[in-house]
Amino acid sequence: MPIKTPLTELFNIEHPILLAPMDVVSGGSLAAAVSAAGGLGLIGGGYGDADWIENEFSVAGNQVVGVGFITWSLAKQPELLDRALEHDPTAIMLSFGDPAPFAGKIKDAGAKLICQVQNVADARAAVELGADVIIAQGTEGGGHGATRATFTLTPAVVDSVAPIPVATAGGVADGRGLAAALMLGAAGVLVGTRFYASQEALGGEAAKARIIEASGDETVRGKVFDIVRQKDWPEHLTGRVLKNDFAKRWSGNEALLRDNLAAEVSRYKKATAHGDFDVAAVIAGECVDLIHDLPPAGEIVAAMVRDAEALLQRDLAR
Amino acid sequence: MPIKTPLTELFNIEHPILLAPMDVVSGGSLAAAVSAAGGLGLIGGGYGDADWIENEFSVAGNQVVGVGFITWSLAKQPELLDRALEHDPTAIMLSFGDPAPFAGKIKDAGAKLICQVQNVADARAAVELGADVIIAQGTEGGGHGATRATFTLTPAVVDSVAPIPVATAGGVADGRGLAAALMLGAAGVLVGTRFYASQEALGGEAAKARIIEASGDETVRGKVFDIVRQKDWPEHLTGRVLKNDFAKRWSGNEALLRDNLAAEVSRYKKATAHGDFDVAAVIAGECVDLIHDLPPAGEIVAAMVRDAEALLQRDLAR
Repeated sequence: MPIKTPLTELFNIEHPILLAPMDVVSGGSLAAAVSAAGGLGLIGGGYGDADWIENEFSVAGNQVVGVGFITWSLAKQPELLDRALEHDPTAIMLSFGDPAPFAGKIKDAGAKLICQVQNVADARAAVELGADVIIAQGTEGGGHGATRATFTLTPAVVDSVAPIPVATAGGVADGRGLAAALMLGAAGVLVGTRFYASQEALGGEAAKARIIEASGDETVRGKVFDIVRQKDWPEHLTGRVLKNDFAKRWSGNEALLRDNLAAEVSRYKKATAHGDFDVAAVIAGECVDLIHDLPPAGEIVAAMVRDAEALLQRDLAR
Repeated sequence: MPIKTPLTELFNIEHPILLAPMDVVSGGSLAAAVSAAGGLGLIGGGYGDADWIENEFSVAGNQVVGVGFITWSLAKQPELLDRALEHDPTAIMLSFGDPAPFAGKIKDAGAKLICQVQNVADARAAVELGADVIIAQGTEGGGHGATRATFTLTPAVVDSVAPIPVATAGGVADGRGLAAALMLGAAGVLVGTRFYASQEALGGEAAKARIIEASGDETVRGKVFDIVRQKDWPEHLTGRVLKNDFAKRWSGNEALLRDNLAAEVSRYKKATAHGDFDVAAVIAGECVDLIHDLPPAGEIVAAMVRDAEALLQRDLAR
């Protein structure tokens, strides 16, 4: 008895579960594994490395996948979109910036346009541009995002863009989250951190181990890692990470970090190269409480669906 | 087919819906209305005005109600707890501070101890003290709270304190929220802002009108109104309000507000007295998107339950 929603119909997939296109984590292997399990994998186009994206499409092989971009970064090298579209992706996801310059080309190419938003106003604007799916992303999610939280953002966006299907992002890590998202009116979920802690995810094993061990009480959303990585994010968009030594040292002391930037950039680059996650960012959401293992991605999809179905069939109103 | 949970069993109530004890909003009339509708009303003991509390218990009449306190404020005048217990409340709710000095007395008096927490560590500590119910309060809620969000905090707290029942607070405003909270593992919900916009709530009609009109995109969590009201809150606890003129003027400029405190305190007091909500705080959560009317509280309870039951009985997994 699979869960059928407008999202499963739109993408002709078995389960309403999308892989978040996590930069340098959601490669072709992870995307393909999620699609093979009945969800939809999205390769993490991130800041836009053409060769990396080409390679990951190649790794994904014959599985139907899409790709996601950081929109403000894509605007600096729009030719990346043409190269991505050459792979005939089932969907292009845009997040963090104005999708207007790209929406027409994506739809003309026959790909579905997925727009991730962090507030109701941006959801309305994305639908005006022709978005086929809206991702309502709450502040509890890992990586970049804004201030509104999943529990109220989801139904508010659903009400604002109906009948366009909405998927919930930010905090979905198990069957409870999938079932709750459906109750809030979503047609599915977009899952990041839970898939980071999977066999197929790219990224360091030490980072995955920290996600498995961490408490959701110990994450922080801020600018520290964008400053030290010298990424020029819009002011209102911040990143959620595990509160490691580096985050503790500089959160709330961002001006001082800027004053010491050269030395800290050097230190940070070395730490990243050596997989030292006391310094390097472990990008993860508040859902880390719910993550205790490192299974193949297909098992994550299967367990999420199985547990959600059991909850939805429970006779609470008896 | 009412929704039965450990929370309805514990309090012998019909519906798993608790009224948040909102300071100067949740008076005896509102608390009694929620209890009469099958939920559980909690009078807002707030910072602790003994005469006000006495009067509101009197207004509540024969309805079974409880009362909630701001714990750090109660610690300054602990005799208020004795006076509250004289009314034989079904429950005492403590939030925002250490419940240890009060837990024993509450339980010895035969009242249930409800502890509201904002993270997993505090949830564990409250259960050690004998809490009968844990409220997991997410950052999207109105008024005071902290940083973790409802969607992940609820299941994380549920997993940490089982089998103690957990109720979700922060963002629950309709049947979707109730149904979602139950999917996340909660045994019920604690509802604030939605009951603020009710006939029986105390507080200005102009404030209620703003809640009905507001977008959830236009709230802010911070210290501004605690500074101007000269309330000495712990550093990690901030308040969420509608982003009115005063909030826009001073959010991010808190140091300057402190420099101009005398004049702004005077201006703020006048605005409060005159119901000028361009200046006075309208304390509300991100769920304001979902609130469009001003019904009696009993209708809010009935609609929330009816809509949640319909969602729970929907055959999504077909």
